[in-house]
Amino acid sequence: MNQTCPFLIRAEQIEASDDSASHPWNPNSAMRGMHLSKQTGLTDTGISWVEVPPGKESCVYHLHYREDEWIYILSGSGTAEINDREYAVGPGDFMGFPAGKAAHHLRNTGSEPLRYLMGGSSKRFELADFPRLGRRVIRQDGEIGVVKLSDISDFEADSP
Amino acid sequence: MNQTCPFLIRAEQIEASDDSASHPWNPNSAMRGMHLSKQTGLTDTGISWVEVPPGKESCVYHLHYREDEWIYILSGSGTAEINDREYAVGPGDFMGFPAGKAAHHLRNTGSEPLRYLMGGSSKRFELADFPRLGRRVIRQDGEIGVVKLSDISDFEADSP
Amino acid sequence: MNQTCPFLIRAEQIEASDDSASHPWNPNSAMRGMHLSKQTGLTDTGISWVEVPPGKESCVYHLHYREDEWIYILSGSGTAEINDREYAVGPGDFMGFPAGKAAHHLRNTGSEPLRYLMGGSSKRFELADFPRLGRRVIRQDGEIGVVKLSDISDFEADSP
Amino acid sequence: MNQTCPFLIRAEQIEASDDSASHPWNPNSAMRGMHLSKQTGLTDTGISWVEVPPGKESCVYHLHYREDEWIYILSGSGTAEINDREYAVGPGDFMGFPAGKAAHHLRNTGSEPLRYLMGGSSKRFELADFPRLGRRVIRQDGEIGVVKLSDISDFEADSP
Repeated sequence: MNQTCPFLIRAEQIEASDDSASHPWNPNSAMRGMHLSKQTGLTDTGISWVEVPPGKESCVYHLHYREDEWIYILSGSGTAEINDREYAVGPGDFMGFPAGKAAHHLRNTGSEPLRYLMGGSSKRFELADFPRLGRRVIRQDGEIGVVKLSDISDFEADSP
Repeated sequence: MNQTCPFLIRAEQIEASDDSASHPWNPNSAMRGMHLSKQTGLTDTGISWVEVPPGKESCVYHLHYREDEWIYILSGSGTAEINDREYAVGPGDFMGFPAGKAAHHLRNTGSEPLRYLMGGSSKRFELADFPRLGRRVIRQDGEIGVVKLSDISDFEADSP
Repeated sequence: MNQTCPFLIRAEQIEASDDSASHPWNPNSAMRGMHLSKQTGLTDTGISWVEVPPGKESCVYHLHYREDEWIYILSGSGTAEINDREYAVGPGDFMGFPAGKAAHHLRNTGSEPLRYLMGGSSKRFELADFPRLGRRVIRQDGEIGVVKLSDISDFEADSP
Repeated sequence: MNQTCPFLIRAEQIEASDDSASHPWNPNSAMRGMHLSKQTGLTDTGISWVEVPPGKESCVYHLHYREDEWIYILSGSGTAEINDREYAVGPGDFMGFPAGKAAHHLRNTGSEPLRYLMGGSSKRFELADFPRLGRRVIRQDGEIGVVKLSDISDFEADSP
């Protein structure tokens, strides 16, 4: 019993992870954590353990078009924005954001670290909107292109 | 703030869920919980909150061939079997079972309820092996067929 | 023998089809034909029978990013443009355009109708470039958005 | 004009192909042809040019569960079996076999070579039934397992 196993990551290892990330479009974005799925070789579904310090934020308010995403709060307290409304969230609360239906963002508005699991599907090709920044992101494998939402026109209306 | 939202499920609702399930092939299997993904409309990725009482077990030792699966322990303590080895697991431990690579099973071997999140990808077609029962399950959408592992022959060897 | 069958379409029916289409961005585009895959209930792969009159063209020079496409010439003669080179094509010639790798276009430069089969994969989300028109098309299910290629910026360079 | 191009295969090359194949379960199966999709780098959709000599047959009567398949007759004449009925088929006839819905087989019952295009989607994991041989084939990537249809039992009925 208790040998090391490539498919098992212990709580202490997870909490000690010093991988950090921040979204380049939000100067207040600050996350630390571990890609649990990558660490264990999962390729078809994503799950990460994330900690956001007090006063900091996860990414930036956005809407995925193809990827489902979810968040489960482990400890701390925060404010979730979902489709332009705010909700106080705490330990044991779950949020599911179906592709194309729920723009969202999460901020640590409490006084201790906000810890949560986040996950979802991952697609080789993805579209995401950042409505407050007026941007759409087009991701193809590693490559990312950005367009202003105001530069997207209707197929019928546009005659090049 | 704090209106109800179709994409947010509160901790109290989750813990009060009285959906229960047990695997028909394991008389000691007993789970209570909630399909968090279904409740919020996620279609591409699955996540459930599950509680197994002391002395009881999750499903039955099995290996998925197409679906990735993972477990994150929230509270309680248990014994995970992964590829025929046993591991004591507790709060904050994560297990990832890549499709085709990690047969697994989880038993509550502690004295309090074992609570965990489990999730993964979900496929319309799936194969899963139950090596200790000598069975392979073929699932097509809702339909499930069962064959004995000993009844599966090699394509070249079989000449009907 | 020779009952009607929902999975079989006779040559006469196919040739008599009066479905027609033209690409709105090319005034010289003119096609007549039948979606053979739709008619027989195929959902995962597309194949159509197409006829282009002398002097007319198929669509407009373009590159798919996610969908593979192919063309097999049945009768007549034409000029195919593939990655900015021209090729004379005739009966029995096959062209395969792997996603992201081969921009293409087909014109009837002969004196009789140019008949061909065309097919490929079909995706719910697709990106396609029209390099000579300086446009990228983003298709999500039925919805189509258009952006100028010159309006797409690099993720790192763009700071909204 | 008329340089060689990796995305274009000439009629002469195709017709001269000496790749041949036969289905191991049908001693009368005999095909010669070319994987047009592989030759041009298509990964998401399959299309082949096939010739079956007089008196010979394509594969063996079967039903795919996940892959769509289609056949377009180029020349010669044959007999198609679709869901246990026979149809005389000739040049220009199209058959589409949606996954799970149309068991099929093709024999050259004429006096000249039967030439056709066949194609469809290709899946890494596939199930196919050979009802006249009482077999189900389970294909995972390259690996193929075979079970007798009579050895498949219902999930609820089977209690290992």
